[in-house]
Amino acid sequence: MNLDSRIDRIIAEELGRHTHAHKHTPHCNWCWTCPECKSEFVSHVVANGACRVGAAPGIGQLQDGLAQYIDHTLLKPEGTRAQIEKLCHEAAEYHFASVCVNPTWVAFCAHLLRGTGVLVCTVVGFPLGANTTEVKVFEARQVVEQGACEVDMVINIGRLKSGEYDFVAHDIAEIVKASQPAHVKVIIENCYLTDEEKIKASLLCREAGAHFVKTSTGFGPSGAKIEDVALMRRVVGEQLGVKAAGGIREFQTAEKMIEAGATRLGASASIAIVEHKKAA
Amino acid sequence: MNLDSRIDRIIAEELGRHTHAHKHTPHCNWCWTCPECKSEFVSHVVANGACRVGAAPGIGQLQDGLAQYIDHTLLKPEGTRAQIEKLCHEAAEYHFASVCVNPTWVAFCAHLLRGTGVLVCTVVGFPLGANTTEVKVFEARQVVEQGACEVDMVINIGRLKSGEYDFVAHDIAEIVKASQPAHVKVIIENCYLTDEEKIKASLLCREAGAHFVKTSTGFGPSGAKIEDVALMRRVVGEQLGVKAAGGIREFQTAEKMIEAGATRLGASASIAIVEHKKAA
Repeated sequence: MNLDSRIDRIIAEELGRHTHAHKHTPHCNWCWTCPECKSEFVSHVVANGACRVGAAPGIGQLQDGLAQYIDHTLLKPEGTRAQIEKLCHEAAEYHFASVCVNPTWVAFCAHLLRGTGVLVCTVVGFPLGANTTEVKVFEARQVVEQGACEVDMVINIGRLKSGEYDFVAHDIAEIVKASQPAHVKVIIENCYLTDEEKIKASLLCREAGAHFVKTSTGFGPSGAKIEDVALMRRVVGEQLGVKAAGGIREFQTAEKMIEAGATRLGASASIAIVEHKKAA
Repeated sequence: MNLDSRIDRIIAEELGRHTHAHKHTPHCNWCWTCPECKSEFVSHVVANGACRVGAAPGIGQLQDGLAQYIDHTLLKPEGTRAQIEKLCHEAAEYHFASVCVNPTWVAFCAHLLRGTGVLVCTVVGFPLGANTTEVKVFEARQVVEQGACEVDMVINIGRLKSGEYDFVAHDIAEIVKASQPAHVKVIIENCYLTDEEKIKASLLCREAGAHFVKTSTGFGPSGAKIEDVALMRRVVGEQLGVKAAGGIREFQTAEKMIEAGATRLGASASIAIVEHKKAA
């Protein structure tokens, strides 16, 4: 199979990389942690934020602040209308990139955030990813119609682990198509994957036209890890954004994730992170 | 509001019950733990199993065995095709009521289990319940078309906790309608609810025409508790089944759940439970 052989080749290359120390080169396309890449990195953040150009701050501000990286997140199922309302007010006040909420609250958030420049991000097939493609497509279409500008979908983890790569690629591609013009972040849920599967999943996201790869749902046994962010960044290259999510509760962690290549952070502790930055 | 005032009345009655010892009466409609109710209880299990009449064992067998109470369950997102296949073979061998799998595997299980008498049960809006009603309805219709005979849906927990009872009742009623002729079990996810909310949720399930109330998804911070099973049984009376799920790993727990009023158990440790029963 064409896709399979391409994937095998890239995995072989990538696993080979793990056997020797990473070499920093001035214009590398793979490394986002070395200082030479920093300027490209910032442009890359802006490029990936095309969906919110109207409210986009300048590059200088991006380099200084953390708020623009943050999807202010409330996905716990017991979250109430009052808590969602508070989330939106905070996001507007702190100029976060978006709020990230469950589909049942998308229309409400889109209404509250009109004119603030803060986007509404939501989740599809969340958090297990084990719905049919048709259900994910239906859900993606509806949330975009209701005002979501970004869609975080979960891959079909069980199918990936069963080696059904064509199925997984098709699943992603269909949701990307159904979500237009919204951007799609694909959650690969690293905690369930081997290194080889993480690489395969990231490549499938790239093949399928996703805009971002995302580390975690925040509902699995563990969240974002710095080494996973760096691995995903190396695999997807410059083309895609990388979102680190799950367990990001401190400023230091947030900063390390960005150094490792993250262009977006999902965090329930967003305000604590930004307040710490301001104090510093 | 009509529904609200009825709910308030029943909650007041039910909370009143907690203040004095429970009185056993020969033909009580509320208590399923006293010996007088046992014969009705068994008939009730059979009545709720109408969906599988063709393969239904006699009442005597129901009283002796545990297997018929069990939904043999594999809902973890990383479950592979090979693991799902094994689950189906085991369910056929041990004569469990059903297998309970994620939607992506329904068609595959329906194919494997044809002619065995084991049902395919699946989940809708799982495990957060925070999808829109339209998405849950679409998902329910599709899984039933693909061969699911039972649908376990999750209520909209956030809306319940926001006091939006009409929304929650409508959500359930729409899925019940869309799932016909399949039976619907409504997961109220007790771990997030106060006692008052558990009662409200159980009543809304009864109002909306659900066939079962179910304690837990197994993905929340805690699973089935015996006191919750007993509370749900008292609230829904004879009309509905009660399914205990999440954290049922031992024979003793399974037996206690049934004594408390459960008519169905969801368990990943199904075989261990049944083997223990056989050995005893």
